[in-house]
Amino acid sequence: MSESKTPPPTMRWIGDPETGSLELIDQTRLPTETVMRRCDDVESVWEAIKMLRVRGAPAIGCAAAYGVVIGARGGAKDGGGAAVVDAADAAADHLATSRPTAVNLFWALERMRKLGATLRDGDRGATLQRLLGEASAIEAEDAATCRAIGAAGAALVPEGASILTHCNAGGLATAAYGTALGVIYAAHEEGKVERVFADETRPLLQGARLTAWELQRAGIDVSVLPDAAAATVLRRGMVDLVVVGADRIARNGDVANKIGTYPLAVLAREHGVPFYVAAPISTFDPDCPNGDAIPIEERAADEVHAFGGVRTAPEGVGSFNPAFDVTPARLVTAIVTQHGLIRDPDEAKVTAHLAAAGVAID
Amino acid sequence: MSESKTPPPTMRWIGDPETGSLELIDQTRLPTETVMRRCDDVESVWEAIKMLRVRGAPAIGCAAAYGVVIGARGGAKDGGGAAVVDAADAAADHLATSRPTAVNLFWALERMRKLGATLRDGDRGATLQRLLGEASAIEAEDAATCRAIGAAGAALVPEGASILTHCNAGGLATAAYGTALGVIYAAHEEGKVERVFADETRPLLQGARLTAWELQRAGIDVSVLPDAAAATVLRRGMVDLVVVGADRIARNGDVANKIGTYPLAVLAREHGVPFYVAAPISTFDPDCPNGDAIPIEERAADEVHAFGGVRTAPEGVGSFNPAFDVTPARLVTAIVTQHGLIRDPDEAKVTAHLAAAGVAID
Repeated sequence: MSESKTPPPTMRWIGDPETGSLELIDQTRLPTETVMRRCDDVESVWEAIKMLRVRGAPAIGCAAAYGVVIGARGGAKDGGGAAVVDAADAAADHLATSRPTAVNLFWALERMRKLGATLRDGDRGATLQRLLGEASAIEAEDAATCRAIGAAGAALVPEGASILTHCNAGGLATAAYGTALGVIYAAHEEGKVERVFADETRPLLQGARLTAWELQRAGIDVSVLPDAAAATVLRRGMVDLVVVGADRIARNGDVANKIGTYPLAVLAREHGVPFYVAAPISTFDPDCPNGDAIPIEERAADEVHAFGGVRTAPEGVGSFNPAFDVTPARLVTAIVTQHGLIRDPDEAKVTAHLAAAGVAID
Repeated sequence: MSESKTPPPTMRWIGDPETGSLELIDQTRLPTETVMRRCDDVESVWEAIKMLRVRGAPAIGCAAAYGVVIGARGGAKDGGGAAVVDAADAAADHLATSRPTAVNLFWALERMRKLGATLRDGDRGATLQRLLGEASAIEAEDAATCRAIGAAGAALVPEGASILTHCNAGGLATAAYGTALGVIYAAHEEGKVERVFADETRPLLQGARLTAWELQRAGIDVSVLPDAAAATVLRRGMVDLVVVGADRIARNGDVANKIGTYPLAVLAREHGVPFYVAAPISTFDPDCPNGDAIPIEERAADEVHAFGGVRTAPEGVGSFNPAFDVTPARLVTAIVTQHGLIRDPDEAKVTAHLAAAGVAID
């Protein structure tokens, strides 16, 4: 394979804070086309998140942070730092409405807001520069975090492993490298990965389109399967472990992730296969006591009624299209973060892990 | 709705046995187009079964029986009944290679062979007429059987029921009315059905394309969902029962059915929701001791790698695409046949039920 072995960067900032722009891989066009999409205003960042051109909880957080920078420069030119910060806050308010479930979005926006609150007395240029620096830091930290998650998770992967994953928790879902796929990449670098099974992940096929594309580029043997065939993979003993990402993890260890994660966890338990969740600390929501408190996005019927312009269901029938489901902590063998493992997660262990990571729990 | 309330006949024979033909709804074109496909030679019947233009275990059996009639008339014109029967047997041999899992195919072919063996001394015209009569009888009996299954199963449906089903075990999968959908139609006729959830059923979307189309025509409220969302429907207590069809039932009550049935059964058990299988006696295979002995068809990668001409996975990645899975009898609340219920099925109960239905077990 002559292509580079790692995915291209999910996003990059080009130029200075006053005139630059955010470029994203338009993930809706993969795997057939690798097209970069330029975002020059807040609305285009909002749209890119809403339409899943950029998706995956950590990547959404990074993109939103850059969106705040783009919004910030809309402040009155003669208003100094305060005008910049007011515009940044307004952009953050708007970006927060793009998608409801991934908590990294709100975490990144809050981080930008907190910095902004310290910058109101500065001048415009310095304030914009500091905000861009923060967004860049969020992105760079996410890339480093994924490497650390990969290293921690690779220890769970046996030699010659076959691994099942769902959706895309890869380089494309993060700044780079990935969470669940970070574990797979790290284990692959140690020569331990034999084969990966990638659930296609209906309705939007992130597994078929994105995970298969990433893993193929990395030279990893990957097979795409209908989501409903994963139970057969587990029943036949074809995989050693399941690893998935997360969009939000409650204080008790309950995990919201792409629709179809919960049945995988039930089936993995049924067949004695370990079920791992890989996510950065920013995916935990200490304000959510448990999975019932996590808002679950329901998406439009047309995602289920058609595909690629081809109608798959008759006009006028109903739909049920939640984008995420909740896996109770009791079905999770371990959560893998950049700080290591939370085995058999529960509220006490999650709280201790977050405290060790410097997250205050009220 | 001005349309008729029941689906058009899945197939019909037009004309005399010497020159007539089999017409089938081409189910690959639904729901956007209702196109009849005419089969005038054995190869076109074989192709229609192989390519799923006609699908569903009982419907495959009916189509194959008519295919034998079409093949039979290829016998030498001056060879009398013996030439007709030889040609019929050759057609049966070929049709048996079209798909491996649905046992109704082999059951119907065997029934045609058994009749043929008694006709070798007749003249050509009478032999062809008898064979056509047998194929018609198989079709008519299947339609009556589905009504009886519906009546038996409707007793399991509570007032105001919400019901989850998978794939299409409806009028289109049988001569008429359906097995799992027969239960739903019969309960609907009694005014008991509030809402049906139809798994879209990847990769070929029989739930979205066929079940939603049938139920909408019958005036039943139907919602299509990604297969992986069924776990959420069950977890949230949104349905009172699950009912599915079957492609082959082993002597111990293990059930082969469309891929994705097994995880539904596990999830139904996890959430205390009854899981029913509706099938005619011809779907039982007394020669199969258990599910491990049922051959599971694996289909081509392109079903998982593309849809409607749109590529969904990168070129060159692998696939895993079994068309069926096996649900162990212990997860089945009851099997519904035209002779009533087999509750908590096991080998003794299945054997007794088949014996009462007149099926000899070796």
